[in-house]
Amino acid sequence: MDENSTLSPAHSDAAASSSANTPPLPYVPSALAPFAGLWRGEGEGAYPTIDDFAYTEEIEFAPTGKPFLAYRSRTREAGSGRPLHSESGFLRLVGEDEAELLVAQPTGFTEIHRGQVREGTIELSMVVLSASPDAKPVHSIRRQLSVRGGDLTYDLWMAHDLTPLTHHLHGHLRRD
Amino acid sequence: MDENSTLSPAHSDAAASSSANTPPLPYVPSALAPFAGLWRGEGEGAYPTIDDFAYTEEIEFAPTGKPFLAYRSRTREAGSGRPLHSESGFLRLVGEDEAELLVAQPTGFTEIHRGQVREGTIELSMVVLSASPDAKPVHSIRRQLSVRGGDLTYDLWMAHDLTPLTHHLHGHLRRD
Repeated sequence: MDENSTLSPAHSDAAASSSANTPPLPYVPSALAPFAGLWRGEGEGAYPTIDDFAYTEEIEFAPTGKPFLAYRSRTREAGSGRPLHSESGFLRLVGEDEAELLVAQPTGFTEIHRGQVREGTIELSMVVLSASPDAKPVHSIRRQLSVRGGDLTYDLWMAHDLTPLTHHLHGHLRRD
Repeated sequence: MDENSTLSPAHSDAAASSSANTPPLPYVPSALAPFAGLWRGEGEGAYPTIDDFAYTEEIEFAPTGKPFLAYRSRTREAGSGRPLHSESGFLRLVGEDEAELLVAQPTGFTEIHRGQVREGTIELSMVVLSASPDAKPVHSIRRQLSVRGGDLTYDLWMAHDLTPLTHHLHGHLRRD
């Protein structure tokens, strides 16, 4: 597959790796390097229409040898350990210091966000939120990711039904 | 978090598991059970605007204890083994015999598809395809998944730039 041909999206990321003479795995773009790895910690959820809740979480940003990290998150109810939420996707570099987060959720949502990577923090702005026919009435999601040394923190805001964009989740994880 | 409260989408799948008295992991809805597991095999790609190509692939539909399987696919160039494409998401049950596939691609696309599960085949129809600002001009993607005993096959069609919906990928994998 020569690089100049019109590439299929399903495989166009191959061109990105062959043209960038990607060093052997696990190459990670320097802007994303602070995020790469396995993280474990806790999170708290709150929202005007539900009770506060606490959870434990495992997040992985796995190097792939390409200009993106494979993302996955699993949360469990604090105390009981009952599985709560999971999501997966990719954190990719789309510019020198610009990242894009693509997320699929098993609750019927997919998300694309973009933001500048500044000193280990990515302030993400929603590009598109897509929902399946019977998904809950979520109108908007905003995310922020930060890494300081061995600590990963994130915040998520959500507009849901009649509630405007409101802080919903805060997670604090440590590199495993 | 009581089940009647307006649940946040980030954690609403928790309610689905607590109300269905989910048996201990790894519960898998019977309609999705044939797909659950790790699969390895080969695939061929073709498209009017590019050369044909062959690849090896690993697909996993991992049980989660909930009414969905965690999906991931990794392909490598046949022969060289160079990483080509990866994608991840979820295959979830949204009705007695209706499934929904949610996919995030590191090439800047997210997809939501739905389809009936009939005798181990899911003929998926695209609900929404979302693209990030600099993603390639893909207008539509159609997918089909089939399991016959220990064989998983899939087909993917794509409309890209000026090319209408055209068969693009065929994969044939065997349960690991």
